[in-house]
Amino acid sequence: MTKNCINVGLIGCGVVGTGVANNLVNGTAQKRHLPCELKLKRIADLYPYKERAYKLPLDLFTTNADDILNDPEIDIVVELIGGCGIALQVITKALENKKNVVTANKALLAEYGPKLAALAKENGVDLYYEAAVCGGIPVIKAVREGLAADTIKSVRGIVNGTCNYILTRMGKDQMAFDDAVKAAQQNGYAEADPTFDLIGKDSLHKIVLLCANCFGSWVKPENISTEGIMGLDQIDIRCAYELGYAIKLLAWAKEKEGKLECMVAPTLIDKGSMLAKVSDAYNAVEINGTPIGRTVYYGEGAGMDATSSAVTADIIDIARNIYSGSVGRLPVFALDKEIEVVPAPDMEMRYYLRWKTDDKPGVIAALSNVLTERNIGISSVILHEFAKAQPYSIVTFMTRETKEAKIKDAIAELDKLSCIQSRTVMLRVESGF
Amino acid sequence: MTKNCINVGLIGCGVVGTGVANNLVNGTAQKRHLPCELKLKRIADLYPYKERAYKLPLDLFTTNADDILNDPEIDIVVELIGGCGIALQVITKALENKKNVVTANKALLAEYGPKLAALAKENGVDLYYEAAVCGGIPVIKAVREGLAADTIKSVRGIVNGTCNYILTRMGKDQMAFDDAVKAAQQNGYAEADPTFDLIGKDSLHKIVLLCANCFGSWVKPENISTEGIMGLDQIDIRCAYELGYAIKLLAWAKEKEGKLECMVAPTLIDKGSMLAKVSDAYNAVEINGTPIGRTVYYGEGAGMDATSSAVTADIIDIARNIYSGSVGRLPVFALDKEIEVVPAPDMEMRYYLRWKTDDKPGVIAALSNVLTERNIGISSVILHEFAKAQPYSIVTFMTRETKEAKIKDAIAELDKLSCIQSRTVMLRVESGF
Repeated sequence: MTKNCINVGLIGCGVVGTGVANNLVNGTAQKRHLPCELKLKRIADLYPYKERAYKLPLDLFTTNADDILNDPEIDIVVELIGGCGIALQVITKALENKKNVVTANKALLAEYGPKLAALAKENGVDLYYEAAVCGGIPVIKAVREGLAADTIKSVRGIVNGTCNYILTRMGKDQMAFDDAVKAAQQNGYAEADPTFDLIGKDSLHKIVLLCANCFGSWVKPENISTEGIMGLDQIDIRCAYELGYAIKLLAWAKEKEGKLECMVAPTLIDKGSMLAKVSDAYNAVEINGTPIGRTVYYGEGAGMDATSSAVTADIIDIARNIYSGSVGRLPVFALDKEIEVVPAPDMEMRYYLRWKTDDKPGVIAALSNVLTERNIGISSVILHEFAKAQPYSIVTFMTRETKEAKIKDAIAELDKLSCIQSRTVMLRVESGF
Repeated sequence: MTKNCINVGLIGCGVVGTGVANNLVNGTAQKRHLPCELKLKRIADLYPYKERAYKLPLDLFTTNADDILNDPEIDIVVELIGGCGIALQVITKALENKKNVVTANKALLAEYGPKLAALAKENGVDLYYEAAVCGGIPVIKAVREGLAADTIKSVRGIVNGTCNYILTRMGKDQMAFDDAVKAAQQNGYAEADPTFDLIGKDSLHKIVLLCANCFGSWVKPENISTEGIMGLDQIDIRCAYELGYAIKLLAWAKEKEGKLECMVAPTLIDKGSMLAKVSDAYNAVEINGTPIGRTVYYGEGAGMDATSSAVTADIIDIARNIYSGSVGRLPVFALDKEIEVVPAPDMEMRYYLRWKTDDKPGVIAALSNVLTERNIGISSVILHEFAKAQPYSIVTFMTRETKEAKIKDAIAELDKLSCIQSRTVMLRVESGF
């Protein structure tokens, strides 16, 4: 079934869609790699005339997605509408019409991934989604092909550029959280309403997709403990730094005794590590496998250019499959097992605890008593010098490995102490990666 | 031509070969990804009985490579002999016998790459070589598939683990070069005779393969200016650090005005950059492309485990091609243009110059006069404080961008000055990446 021209239909021509269309219309790189023609045949968007970053031929546009979905000449449908509404209908119909699909829609895949994968298989077509995780970085390809010989033990990543930009400004420029959010918005790294990123939802969707590829198991988003960086205090960035750590919003998962631990949370990581060096809106994913050891994949995780690179590479990959008659060469997700997810209260981690306390004798003793009574080991206690001129003290504890249920119980008790002026701030500390 | 069992023959069962055999015999990860059986049918090695890191079934062994090359049931031949002698014969015969080939042999490919690629194409089989560049890191896959939509502007990497281990020891532990080499040997990171690594030859082979994949052009090894780290002085590591740089053995190439600049040399790179953080025997490659921007791939660049991961992933990739009837789906090298390589004397870079000089007035003036007479701009001059107790001075200059011919001419003159006690040390400084 060798074809000399493979036709692409693009549905949703916003920022990323415009980049993809430009790659296909004006790009040259793929021609080197592909023995057949790749043609953008049609673009469906409600606003054909709106101003776009690249000039695209107006005659390609339609306002009706069905003009693409029902066109028998179109081989690959690119869905870049986003969200779980119309996008779900579009992808479902495309697959049912036996069209290969490329999407960057992490929210949709995190929710309907296995269902859509089954539908793709049933109809004998490909469903690719490299751009759904970390924009341009080819990390899905790395896991399911480059590391195909490996058993993955753990994966962790800085997978949300908005949050990483905010944390970078808070760290490097000592900005307060609100100011850093504003800076992110002003520089195009955060949406007008950035809640979705800040509460960790976007990272959650990405770790679901990484888990499927790393562990061959589908973890439902609702089973993953998720905390964002909303309202993170500048003081904690500073205290963490003094302790030798950077705070990053990590999405991570690891296999432990046949079960899976998985979480999204702001986390203290060794400031000398590769991940701690990932700044601004960059993303990085670290994968630890056997036999390969530790590998890291780094690059821009969002934006028109980087994301369009991944979408277009997927289109080229599928075009190769069509040309060589090997559609379905890779499973959408190689799901082959159910792994039990450890509930958050049962996970053992190290914790960073921080208080604003009265500046008087006995405070450290009172705090540490609560932990000691519960047999929670302490690995560091600091009454921070930088607050010496203040009418209060800043105190941090670092604990040894403890179950989350136990630390939360201790925190409930700590928050009752009369010597503390604010509720306990608790952050996780990386361990065992 | 769907097959339910794909047979592999391994030729050369040394360190990496043992790892690959173990992956195939005992590994489980690939079964998740592959719809057919993958079977190690035969191993050819002159020493079947020698002790190996993993126990392998003795009945798989033969001492005669022809038992594999002539076996009509074998689909994939894995060449892990190394070198350009027998390995060339083995690969040639395998391809002529229409067997797909996987190799980690960078020296052979750098020398005979286009010839072997043509032979593979002629015989309708695949020739994969992920493990030839940076061991386990799937960087070849990233470039030719993950970044298939991109035009690559530049690539640079720390691609030799031995040299990077030595430079790390010289930097972190202030070891002298010879001691660092010994430490590398003692820890298994350097061969008994590490010359090949230290003079930059190994890095040269890797940049040839990266260039082919990034720029679609074959650069002959003899056209690439190559310097290693042999005899690098601890003093220069220290001076570079004071200037804000780490010294890394970089292999790099970039397109500039339609021509290609390409080099292997110890280079000063910003100590805050991702590449500067790559320590010990780790490797990393940074690729800058349009539209994707900058991406980095990091991991172990050598050793049984990491390398066997890449070889085995290639085997799985080819097995997928065989199973889905799409052998030849990717070109071995997508060579489609001849790019002129800029001769080293015409390349413009910044330079680090260092001298041991007499401790007397007029030295800095004498040194800078030579550069000024030649219109070479200077961006930094330091007479280093750390040598204050010595009967000599340590002086470093950093130049602005200058042609190599001009700086070499200046150095010839500088070396004649009576105030310097050792010949000029010249190192390159990264610029324009």
